[in-house]
Amino acid sequence: MIIVKTKPEIRDAVAKWRSAGKRISAVPTMGALHQGHLSLIDTAKQHSDRVVATIFVNPLQFGPNEDFKTYPRDMDHDLALLEAQGCDLVFAPEHTDLFAPDFSTKISVAGVGEDHCAVTRPQFFDGVATIVAKLLINLAPDLAVFGEKDYQQLMVIRRMTRDLDIDVKIVGSPIIRETDGLAMSSRNQYLSSSERAIAPKLFETLNLAAEIFLQGESDWPVISEWASTRLTDAGFSKVDYLNMTDAATLTHIVKPDQPARLLAAAWIGRTRLIDNIPASA
Amino acid sequence: MIIVKTKPEIRDAVAKWRSAGKRISAVPTMGALHQGHLSLIDTAKQHSDRVVATIFVNPLQFGPNEDFKTYPRDMDHDLALLEAQGCDLVFAPEHTDLFAPDFSTKISVAGVGEDHCAVTRPQFFDGVATIVAKLLINLAPDLAVFGEKDYQQLMVIRRMTRDLDIDVKIVGSPIIRETDGLAMSSRNQYLSSSERAIAPKLFETLNLAAEIFLQGESDWPVISEWASTRLTDAGFSKVDYLNMTDAATLTHIVKPDQPARLLAAAWIGRTRLIDNIPASA
Repeated sequence: MIIVKTKPEIRDAVAKWRSAGKRISAVPTMGALHQGHLSLIDTAKQHSDRVVATIFVNPLQFGPNEDFKTYPRDMDHDLALLEAQGCDLVFAPEHTDLFAPDFSTKISVAGVGEDHCAVTRPQFFDGVATIVAKLLINLAPDLAVFGEKDYQQLMVIRRMTRDLDIDVKIVGSPIIRETDGLAMSSRNQYLSSSERAIAPKLFETLNLAAEIFLQGESDWPVISEWASTRLTDAGFSKVDYLNMTDAATLTHIVKPDQPARLLAAAWIGRTRLIDNIPASA
Repeated sequence: MIIVKTKPEIRDAVAKWRSAGKRISAVPTMGALHQGHLSLIDTAKQHSDRVVATIFVNPLQFGPNEDFKTYPRDMDHDLALLEAQGCDLVFAPEHTDLFAPDFSTKISVAGVGEDHCAVTRPQFFDGVATIVAKLLINLAPDLAVFGEKDYQQLMVIRRMTRDLDIDVKIVGSPIIRETDGLAMSSRNQYLSSSERAIAPKLFETLNLAAEIFLQGESDWPVISEWASTRLTDAGFSKVDYLNMTDAATLTHIVKPDQPARLLAAAWIGRTRLIDNIPASA
């Protein structure tokens, strides 16, 4: 497995594969890898001849009071996992490899990049869209794989690449869960053991709420209220949102009359968890 | 000269030249071509083997009360001029060739994209940065040529391409002027003959103001006030700004102690003119 840090190195490495006719996939990550990330590598391998993973904790997508400084970092462990999974190349730039001191460009995605997570994390999707555009422009892969765990992020990246004519296929890969249903996340390691015991209630509650929704007798706002109370009763400290959305546009829906996705974010103590499930008949 | 309308066609045409080892330049325009544009083609030809011009009146860069609908359009005349100038390929897409109905992505450049023209045209540089990124991503030229007449636009495009790692050299090409000094512009055709007689006072006043500035006895705000009055006395209806700026960062400067650029925008009747000159010792 090749490991490079700079833009010229990554461009050269990818260009060599390209001229040899290889199909190339990218898997952008912030490191702190878990089985969810490794499943993205597997998906990438199924669709391509060479897999490039990126590891970069992107400051643009963290708010001023968020966990950029404490976000888990363990490069040696991440590299060992990627190598074992059959990743071919890792791009792990330093901040100064990616950003000029007077960097000042931002990519924003209206519509799918508004509402939901954007309400409490107003800088998040701008930061994601900007860094992903940079990575895709440097790597020029045939496809890029992102987890469905951040479903809104996946929609934002699809929209951004389409709108800017970045010639890449964006592939969504299913959420990987712990045996008790908790969606895998690098931030799960923030949870204390008592918090960890509560966490699976999020997925459980989403499933129950979607089931009630699909019965069609109650409108979503009523069910959402019930589900929110169920979460706080279970020990969640705060529910950011429980939104039933059109699966393509992420606009709010009330009745089960179209392909839907239930999106959620909720806090246990100081840890914010997100999850989502399809909610279609 | 080849003329294409769609993204797949332009990508194919450029890819063929690229695989033949040709160096490719791009000259993005909104049509309504004049000698200024044709000088950009000349500059492009000096730096490359093949020149691609684009003609597209970009709605993203017009404000709701601006002249998008009345902006001059004359495709046949433009194509004849480009062919005569030795342009190799023209990309002239329709709106639907470039934008999906739910297009919703925007590129913003802070710093150099703020202040000056951005004060009265807050959407302008976002619109420019977004369309230029799209065009450059589709064309993937080795270099792209832009006129210095919109000096702030040139700085915004430089910053945007650098920040997003779009691998293109941005070349600025000098302002082309009428014999009386008026900077050539597609919008000059809006001027009545009496307005046209007043218009050269802008360049004349910029030169006088820069000369006084370089003498170093008065601070810029004092000179700017004098120049602004000179313009309104000459018949200009409104001065948007007369800003002495650092030539690289476009921040305001007061004294002639660094490479400077004098940027200006002023109205004659319903026509807004811009101009700029270097102001360094």
